[in-house]
Amino acid sequence: MHELRKDPLLNRWVAVMSDSRSPEDYGLFSEKAEETSCVLCAGREKDAPPEITSSRDGDRWLARVIPNISPILRIEGDLGRRGVGMYDKMNGVGANEIIIDSPEHQKLPEDMGAGQVLRILSIYRNRVADLERDGRLRYILIFKNSGKGAGALYSHPHSELMATPIIPKLIKEELDGAKQYYAYKERCIFCDIMAEELRVGERVISETKEFVAFSPFAPKFPFEFWILPKRHNCAFQDTGDAEMGDLSLMLSTVLKKMRRVLKDSPYNYVIHTAPNRIPRRNHWHTLGDDFHWHIEIIPRLLRTSGFEWGSDFYVLTTSPEDAAKYLREA
Amino acid sequence: MHELRKDPLLNRWVAVMSDSRSPEDYGLFSEKAEETSCVLCAGREKDAPPEITSSRDGDRWLARVIPNISPILRIEGDLGRRGVGMYDKMNGVGANEIIIDSPEHQKLPEDMGAGQVLRILSIYRNRVADLERDGRLRYILIFKNSGKGAGALYSHPHSELMATPIIPKLIKEELDGAKQYYAYKERCIFCDIMAEELRVGERVISETKEFVAFSPFAPKFPFEFWILPKRHNCAFQDTGDAEMGDLSLMLSTVLKKMRRVLKDSPYNYVIHTAPNRIPRRNHWHTLGDDFHWHIEIIPRLLRTSGFEWGSDFYVLTTSPEDAAKYLREA
Repeated sequence: MHELRKDPLLNRWVAVMSDSRSPEDYGLFSEKAEETSCVLCAGREKDAPPEITSSRDGDRWLARVIPNISPILRIEGDLGRRGVGMYDKMNGVGANEIIIDSPEHQKLPEDMGAGQVLRILSIYRNRVADLERDGRLRYILIFKNSGKGAGALYSHPHSELMATPIIPKLIKEELDGAKQYYAYKERCIFCDIMAEELRVGERVISETKEFVAFSPFAPKFPFEFWILPKRHNCAFQDTGDAEMGDLSLMLSTVLKKMRRVLKDSPYNYVIHTAPNRIPRRNHWHTLGDDFHWHIEIIPRLLRTSGFEWGSDFYVLTTSPEDAAKYLREA
Repeated sequence: MHELRKDPLLNRWVAVMSDSRSPEDYGLFSEKAEETSCVLCAGREKDAPPEITSSRDGDRWLARVIPNISPILRIEGDLGRRGVGMYDKMNGVGANEIIIDSPEHQKLPEDMGAGQVLRILSIYRNRVADLERDGRLRYILIFKNSGKGAGALYSHPHSELMATPIIPKLIKEELDGAKQYYAYKERCIFCDIMAEELRVGERVISETKEFVAFSPFAPKFPFEFWILPKRHNCAFQDTGDAEMGDLSLMLSTVLKKMRRVLKDSPYNYVIHTAPNRIPRRNHWHTLGDDFHWHIEIIPRLLRTSGFEWGSDFYVLTTSPEDAAKYLREA
């Protein structure tokens, strides 16, 4: 079984695969020819692991979920937290699923209509609601890798779900930062940021009844942008049906805009939501008051360098105001 | 002037360029043909900014330092810390220098002998000692980007120096982590890690009189490794001459090993040293006791995905023990 290990200095967990790749396995600098069909395509269901759930139109599936073919984390087993010398490790328990966004191999997310995006978002919501009942799992991360340059394993449009038995370091930092702000101001920092962005306007990309998309003031990447729900809500899976319709329209619109401006550059998006098992209701002061779920979208235009990896300090070669202008006007 | 902005949630600073690149400027997916000479080459000195310092053999320079041609941070001006709405920013004050590692365009760092590596390391040491006297600068980061896939701007072998008016987020986290460990154990965490690695042995790659190279227990990247001085010392620039000789032999050896195992994969290395202006001596408990300078070397074998960017959780497709074995035996 794969194992999880904790960096003793930074308290960052990592997953270590039990079946190590040799140096040759990395296929240095070899780009595979682009396929036109794959194991995620309609018609190849027999070659894939058994389906977990799907969105269907009669006999045909329109979007579906399968376990990752080589899962990083597995649902079976106990956590087995233990020390080894001065270090800490645990078993690689969790879930790692692939959401197949379309039966068609060459349909890009930005070319799907709002109807298909709604199907995909509804599947995300259902999977999170299902998995958060598992007491061993602390966090559920949903993300998309679009394009090999964004780490995608398949060229077929897909998203991924990773449920972890620990709260990943970046999420913990976001929760801590939001909590500190709340302790000082007694207001949600995301609600305040959204109000400030709507007041100033120069970083806003798009606004609907329920959502706002904007370039943040100090992002990590040029052309990075966020989508926030206007209603304060810490958990993505508590999004209502009317909001879901609005969100699918927003997401499909901004992905199209990004495509127009940045052509076929690879990108990721990630849903940042509250951890599992927090007391979300009926408390005077809970994480529910100080966290606010949102989506972060990051185009992958440049290779990160030793500077970024050695400092966590980022250089924005396009200002957030200019990036928002390009995207808003697209 | 470029400006620095602070992310209000994570307290991460970023640099925003005043001359925004347009989407077209990113040259999406176009790879330039490899040059065979450039502005960093011997003979092209007139086309480069004025030299800051150099290591010479008579008339010939063997390694030299110039300001970055398009510096991200500039040495002139005051910090100008100020608020803007709910956010914080300051001027892009600092230093951004290029260390040209060789007069020859096609000489790779791993093909240089220990003598040339010593010249480069001595230049690093001198530049840090010089710049840390500037009271506006809080941190000096020295790093190498080798290969376009590692973010290198030039194919000519070079390193970079970035001096920042803030302590970058990752450095602050390392200092805080080391301080917490020290508060609990009254020992340096790096000294403890080194003792543990030498005791266990399975992650050690190479050992000299003064230095140890090993794969850390829970790194971010497959085949990542660190070089630590055996003598407890928080500041790279306080490395003695005898240690410098030993370090150049170690660095040149491990880079050659990495080359043998990972062929021409791109990589970064970063010197992690204590911030400027800390009371390093004559204090009962200072950062000098709890931090330990070191070099981190990261091969860039895989593209990071939305999972890593959204969680700061990393997947190691080769275990540190196997990676160390490959490198040790190379």
